[in-house]
Amino acid sequence: MNQWALILTAAILGSGAAIARASEPEAASPAESNVRGAPSPNIGADRTIHFSLKAPEANSVQVAGGDGLGAGPFPMTKGADGVWSVTTPPAVPGFHYYWFVLDGVSVNDPASQTYFGYGKETSGIEVPEAGADFYAIRDVPHGEVRAKWYFSRTTGAWRRALVYTPPDYEKNPKRRYPVLILQHGAGEDETGWTRQGRANFILDNLMAAGEAVPMIVVMDCGYANKAGTAPLAIGPGVSRETIRIAFRTFEDVIVHELIPMIDAAYRTMPDRNHRAMAGLSMGGMQTLFVTLHHLDRFSYIGSFSGPVIPGINTGREPQGNTPEEFDSKTAYEGAFADPRAFNKRVKLLWLGVGTAESPMFRSSISSAATALQRAGVDVVYFESPGTAHEWQSWRRALNEFAPRLFH
Amino acid sequence: MNQWALILTAAILGSGAAIARASEPEAASPAESNVRGAPSPNIGADRTIHFSLKAPEANSVQVAGGDGLGAGPFPMTKGADGVWSVTTPPAVPGFHYYWFVLDGVSVNDPASQTYFGYGKETSGIEVPEAGADFYAIRDVPHGEVRAKWYFSRTTGAWRRALVYTPPDYEKNPKRRYPVLILQHGAGEDETGWTRQGRANFILDNLMAAGEAVPMIVVMDCGYANKAGTAPLAIGPGVSRETIRIAFRTFEDVIVHELIPMIDAAYRTMPDRNHRAMAGLSMGGMQTLFVTLHHLDRFSYIGSFSGPVIPGINTGREPQGNTPEEFDSKTAYEGAFADPRAFNKRVKLLWLGVGTAESPMFRSSISSAATALQRAGVDVVYFESPGTAHEWQSWRRALNEFAPRLFH
Repeated sequence: MNQWALILTAAILGSGAAIARASEPEAASPAESNVRGAPSPNIGADRTIHFSLKAPEANSVQVAGGDGLGAGPFPMTKGADGVWSVTTPPAVPGFHYYWFVLDGVSVNDPASQTYFGYGKETSGIEVPEAGADFYAIRDVPHGEVRAKWYFSRTTGAWRRALVYTPPDYEKNPKRRYPVLILQHGAGEDETGWTRQGRANFILDNLMAAGEAVPMIVVMDCGYANKAGTAPLAIGPGVSRETIRIAFRTFEDVIVHELIPMIDAAYRTMPDRNHRAMAGLSMGGMQTLFVTLHHLDRFSYIGSFSGPVIPGINTGREPQGNTPEEFDSKTAYEGAFADPRAFNKRVKLLWLGVGTAESPMFRSSISSAATALQRAGVDVVYFESPGTAHEWQSWRRALNEFAPRLFH
Repeated sequence: MNQWALILTAAILGSGAAIARASEPEAASPAESNVRGAPSPNIGADRTIHFSLKAPEANSVQVAGGDGLGAGPFPMTKGADGVWSVTTPPAVPGFHYYWFVLDGVSVNDPASQTYFGYGKETSGIEVPEAGADFYAIRDVPHGEVRAKWYFSRTTGAWRRALVYTPPDYEKNPKRRYPVLILQHGAGEDETGWTRQGRANFILDNLMAAGEAVPMIVVMDCGYANKAGTAPLAIGPGVSRETIRIAFRTFEDVIVHELIPMIDAAYRTMPDRNHRAMAGLSMGGMQTLFVTLHHLDRFSYIGSFSGPVIPGINTGREPQGNTPEEFDSKTAYEGAFADPRAFNKRVKLLWLGVGTAESPMFRSSISSAATALQRAGVDVVYFESPGTAHEWQSWRRALNEFAPRLFH
């Protein structure tokens, strides 16, 4: 092959030689999370997944990932062609992070798109759920997802928010819209909700069906360090006080910078009746932290798999995982101490969790919901059947939460 | 550390344990392309780069990447802590793809953001250029970069265009804007120009200085397969006819789907006098392919490091790398055969290349420019000093090209 043919081949292929072209089991399809043209990983009709990696010189290769992939890591077997492969058990539907462990090092699959999780770019696989198309891109009007840069005096740095504008935003140049602030989890960033979560498609579909009112959704990065301060301490024994400092900084950004910026840049309805906040995991904790401090600015609150750790808000030691141990009078700095006043002021308090999540999430959240309900606080509690602390739980949560907003 | 502290640590760190926390040379700074909090790779004042990867069980680790990093791959040395490291020679300023070769497998650096290149998610490092801030995010008004989904009947699939709207777009709801279509290179995708290329910041800065007129920039994916057709053949000996088929499909998408969609969705000036197209490498080839077929739709044309391979457009064998071998009468299907007519019709033909690019690029492009100039075709030719077939060449190209548009 001459020089010209080489570059043209590269142009056509557009893919690295390291991507294994393994033979595929019958009826398996390449994951839609693969990079273009990559046949592996592929997913069988039974949701078994065939992973492969060409690594002729490696001593060992495993695949590991999110809970829904099964109890890995799964050892892979080397073929005569130097391609390591394994077929994993039927996976839980939805999006799962995964990675290869190549001679002891966690590395990405070159055949996969990457998604920001665990504080780094990570491979991910989309396992279809039969009959579920609420997060699929469908033939309905689509909103835009806009990258919006703004300078934060709090952090002394530029930040990027992603802003979903609904499909009719440009067609109605005088219309104003309510706003949902929607936050990712620990180790993720502002891209999580649209890439892993497909929040924009979920909202497109809900709006097309008339099940959610048109709204703007703002997704920002949940990490913020005060300008001029040293990075937060790293290592074992990080204190709740450190977490509180980090959350406080984030709170300052959201309340004093993000919200005013959004209200200035977009046609919002800039009042508490038309502003919601929700988040997943750490983002759920942050949502309760921020909104309960600022009920003058928010009237809809959602925590998706946000562990209930009153110590974060109150400074108290964490309470247990039974309703009896959750003291609704003192939890969250007493925000729920007067249930009637709370119910009058807050239009929606929504807590959700997946049934396959660990007790730290499921028990703490369900216990808080039960205790709050017993105390007379209006709280909607949702369980996502069969899903773990992963994105399918949060897609479902958003799909349940968004229709309840702004009525 | 108990269960609570573990998740909170994860929340604060937001980073994987595989990221090596190596000691840093004096005066070196973490690359701005690193994921948050990652101290490595870091770059010295002399633009030497210290790379590291924790891989206690590996037998060999190297680092390799784009031309501007130097003549690698560079073998890394294992320390007693299991961290492999190397300091590479002073790099050319700008963005360089890179990867580790871990026991023979090319893998990403977990400490780096990823960028779509080589048909996969690839690590990248931003090496500062002293005195150059034309692509920095500065304290000027910023446009948005909008993800816009549309269905292509040509390919039978949804596509995503990224659309830069200028800073004043929302403030002037009746104003209409000219459009630049801006394409990535082989193995990349629609994210390249804003992530690797920082096109949005380049345009923000040019507009803030009054050096470019406000414009909309549309970035789409340069790959397109006809609906229902088999994927293009893979392997050695790919023919120019195959390339032509691929380019034709892309041309159909651009001309018959993308342009009408953009003109319907945004406040454009929908005529040839206000429409430009440019691209880099493969995107430059595609730009000439598309625009020269449709001069009724385009009046500004830019090819950044687009190799001049007349065989693509004409079916003829490639011509040589001297001006004498470039036949301006027949090249590009005779588009330049009548220089006076061409000059009258086309407001700008702009060709650029980096001085450190290989002859396939530099000689073919400079020869074409010389031959066209000799034949009387108005062509602007630009050389980026010291840069190879990498993004710094194309950032500079855009910075030179955009001010010439739409006057």
